[in-house]
Amino acid sequence: MKLTAKTEIIKEFIGIADGINVEELRVHVEEDKIWYLTVDTANVALALVEIPKDAFTEFDVIPSTFCLDMDKFKVIFGFGGKEISIIRDTVESNSIVVESGGYRSVQTLLHDGTVKKDPNMPGFELPGKVEMVGKDLASIITNISKISDKIRFVVADGKFTVKSEAEGQDNTEKVMHGDELLHIGGDGNSMFSADYLIGMSRNFSGDIGISIGVDHPIILEFGVSGGRGTGKYLLAPRIEGGE
Amino acid sequence: MKLTAKTEIIKEFIGIADGINVEELRVHVEEDKIWYLTVDTANVALALVEIPKDAFTEFDVIPSTFCLDMDKFKVIFGFGGKEISIIRDTVESNSIVVESGGYRSVQTLLHDGTVKKDPNMPGFELPGKVEMVGKDLASIITNISKISDKIRFVVADGKFTVKSEAEGQDNTEKVMHGDELLHIGGDGNSMFSADYLIGMSRNFSGDIGISIGVDHPIILEFGVSGGRGTGKYLLAPRIEGGE
Amino acid sequence: MKLTAKTEIIKEFIGIADGINVEELRVHVEEDKIWYLTVDTANVALALVEIPKDAFTEFDVIPSTFCLDMDKFKVIFGFGGKEISIIRDTVESNSIVVESGGYRSVQTLLHDGTVKKDPNMPGFELPGKVEMVGKDLASIITNISKISDKIRFVVADGKFTVKSEAEGQDNTEKVMHGDELLHIGGDGNSMFSADYLIGMSRNFSGDIGISIGVDHPIILEFGVSGGRGTGKYLLAPRIEGGE
Repeated sequence: MKLTAKTEIIKEFIGIADGINVEELRVHVEEDKIWYLTVDTANVALALVEIPKDAFTEFDVIPSTFCLDMDKFKVIFGFGGKEISIIRDTVESNSIVVESGGYRSVQTLLHDGTVKKDPNMPGFELPGKVEMVGKDLASIITNISKISDKIRFVVADGKFTVKSEAEGQDNTEKVMHGDELLHIGGDGNSMFSADYLIGMSRNFSGDIGISIGVDHPIILEFGVSGGRGTGKYLLAPRIEGGE
Repeated sequence: MKLTAKTEIIKEFIGIADGINVEELRVHVEEDKIWYLTVDTANVALALVEIPKDAFTEFDVIPSTFCLDMDKFKVIFGFGGKEISIIRDTVESNSIVVESGGYRSVQTLLHDGTVKKDPNMPGFELPGKVEMVGKDLASIITNISKISDKIRFVVADGKFTVKSEAEGQDNTEKVMHGDELLHIGGDGNSMFSADYLIGMSRNFSGDIGISIGVDHPIILEFGVSGGRGTGKYLLAPRIEGGE
Repeated sequence: MKLTAKTEIIKEFIGIADGINVEELRVHVEEDKIWYLTVDTANVALALVEIPKDAFTEFDVIPSTFCLDMDKFKVIFGFGGKEISIIRDTVESNSIVVESGGYRSVQTLLHDGTVKKDPNMPGFELPGKVEMVGKDLASIITNISKISDKIRFVVADGKFTVKSEAEGQDNTEKVMHGDELLHIGGDGNSMFSADYLIGMSRNFSGDIGISIGVDHPIILEFGVSGGRGTGKYLLAPRIEGGE
């Protein structure tokens, strides 16, 4: 197996799992794409990412999987190379060679049996839908998280509201109307951990689709590899007693 | 009440109290200006700031006071809005709404009775006078504070000296002559806490007037809101036994 | 004694000793140069630096030595002056005056008797030789140190390899061939502490000469003061049992 792509493409692919603090990642290699479906250690957030063959400058594969130690792998991103190659001699090999910027790194793979099984991606139908610029959502999450460690998303009456609920009557909110959004429809109202949203938001680029229900998980969908691939986060809600 | 001004103007107004680590701030609203006179928790430093109606783009007030939780209020400065509006429904209302950059923040006010009374601004006549560029003084304070946690200011013989006194014979000083200053006159010699001076110096802009005596407080006066308003700090001296 | 030079020249002179965490530095003043030979507290690394008279804009000396408290002296670098002057009234004076950017700092010197004696510079003949751009070597050390706290240098077969050896079969290496180097010759293979190499590499500028043997110290030689003076580091190897 030899996979070569621009450093930014590999970094984004790995970064999405890193955004939910995944430490061990099982990557699936198929004839025409690579992908993963992973869950954080607390079983609160899922990430599903897929990038097609044509995002790579070299894509010489046999269908297989390999399991990365994320901390070990991520070091390569600091080496300043423009491209990264991932080389595995055979599908049985227990190591890969990662090359970038003239550096050559031999990395032992994790044993597949010791890495958490891929989760099921739950099949939700969520009624509230918003589409907006990803960087805008990231900026709003950053700002609202300064107020509170929980962030509520509300879709109602053609408006999308992101808000904190602090103690007493205090609250801070950003309301966006239809003309500030690419799309809005339906209804939804759920609260989420700010920490998880911040981690996820580091990976938002291009436009982002948001699906929410009432006290249900949120689904965030966005393009990766410059729109050639797809990324998806699912995050469980924080439901507070008495609300 | 509705007050609207450029973010920089509100930030500077609040920042001066923040420079002496005030945590609870009583703001006075009058027909033609807003102002405060506050003292730090250790009763070592005073700040008096006043900005007139014409520094605001909207100034719809009834004479009153309101008490801010500084930490809660300051979060708004990170939101990237060009203007900030502060809205209070009635002069009895126990909350304000702060709007900036599309964000809307409801903030409970502090009860006036629980916030430290406004101090008296002592009426000193201090003989040593210097006028100089505020940023220059800020830079000198930063540098000298690297040597020692106490900084001595001396006005004598037409020279202004800012100095540290470290252990033994060690000392570091910056001497400015008349041609490096906008004005110098009289005599003075007092020592102050470097920490307080650093906090204050973050707010120096434009020209600054310095008044000092012998082992007396220092008074620092400077323009705010681009020269429309005025800011004043008073800081008690550090007097060491045997000097 | 009065020595005046551009701040960058004094900063580089002092910085080389600082790169191996020397805290007390004995500077030798001669008719036509100043120099030092110093060793870190753990006796693992030496630095030898010499800058000639013509690197100074003022060089009024009597042959002598003086001993600096490095932490005290380094503060002057933050003052923003373009030049630094070091003044000592007589060769018996127990203090110096350091002037820069309008600041004047009186600093008590350390007693010569309390400062570690100058080490001997061992006379090695090391067979492996490499010459390359200093900034390139610094960048490689920074990258490889992210993998491991020990870095191996190998000169063999006309190639220069810098590598980490992590647990198990994992390793990361950068291999440079003759066309990426200014010179390569001989053989060598030794391992060193990454921390020391990082400290040293902050001072690499211009071209650097590397001399290594087998489990022997490394010698790094480079120009200082824009090529007028010379700097040299010697670092003892880390030899692991069983290798």
